[in-house]
Amino acid sequence: MIHMEGLDVKLSKAQRLLLMTDGSVTTLLEVLTGKPVVVTTLLQQVVKADTDRAVNLDITEGDSINYRVVVLMNEDDDRALIHAESYTPIARLQKEFRHDLMKADIPIGRILAQRKIESRREIRRIETTLNEELCDLFNVPRDIPLLSRTYDIISNCMVLIRITETFPSTNFSKKIVMDIP
Amino acid sequence: MIHMEGLDVKLSKAQRLLLMTDGSVTTLLEVLTGKPVVVTTLLQQVVKADTDRAVNLDITEGDSINYRVVVLMNEDDDRALIHAESYTPIARLQKEFRHDLMKADIPIGRILAQRKIESRREIRRIETTLNEELCDLFNVPRDIPLLSRTYDIISNCMVLIRITETFPSTNFSKKIVMDIP
Repeated sequence: MIHMEGLDVKLSKAQRLLLMTDGSVTTLLEVLTGKPVVVTTLLQQVVKADTDRAVNLDITEGDSINYRVVVLMNEDDDRALIHAESYTPIARLQKEFRHDLMKADIPIGRILAQRKIESRREIRRIETTLNEELCDLFNVPRDIPLLSRTYDIISNCMVLIRITETFPSTNFSKKIVMDIP
Repeated sequence: MIHMEGLDVKLSKAQRLLLMTDGSVTTLLEVLTGKPVVVTTLLQQVVKADTDRAVNLDITEGDSINYRVVVLMNEDDDRALIHAESYTPIARLQKEFRHDLMKADIPIGRILAQRKIESRREIRRIETTLNEELCDLFNVPRDIPLLSRTYDIISNCMVLIRITETFPSTNFSKKIVMDIP
């Protein structure tokens, strides 16, 4: 279990689910919002790995990486639910997966399911950040702390994708109430 | 997306999360209850596959299966959260996984994570059932409908485990309320 450094006491259950899940975030968002979730791609480009990135992904400096920045939102609503950045070593992508990732607005969890890719997820970091540009994107005041987590989707014992998901601490902030037995 | 045949309109978000997730149910329960979740094994035995079971698991009739029945509960509370039955073809288990599954009270999601097993989950069925014996186990009236789902954990393109999870429709029944942006 990843420590959230005291963060957890202040977080709602929906926020903790989004930060802790090892399943599809899209599915989770669809259940939480009760509506279909779609991806809007903000940026999609092939970049060369710098030293840090190469170490994180266990590739060689200069190797090609697909860098994708998306926003997850409800299909009938232009408000951002979650901002997600992903880094994928191109050489590790099967042809069909590469097409889905680079040419189409498909959430990664859905690509994995459709392509029947076996994987596991390891959470690397959960933190709070400040970021004025992202606050503008989410249309919240610039001093609102953001909640963020970074995790790896691992397949064939290699990092297939490193993802950082971010959302304002004011999103999904109400309590989950429920009966246990 | 699996259809729930009109079920979903009556279900709370927590119930829908438990029925729809493709991640660890233990992690989900820990976040929903806010407390550590443990497994209590009710039954653990090796059985021979009958015709139906052999078809479901894509093995030969008569092959050995590990049949495990557990209850997930909070560590400090003897009330059952979820009842889970699992069928695992013995021949598909690595030695360490077999030990964890057959000799120890460890949730399957946690075994998969600890043993770094790459997999995917496919939901086969979501339904309501009536079962007096299970109602007694959950300490609810015998006419309370139970919610149940059956899914496969697939690894190396084979069904590693078929799991059926069940809980009363009165568990996790309150609404999740939250702010979206």
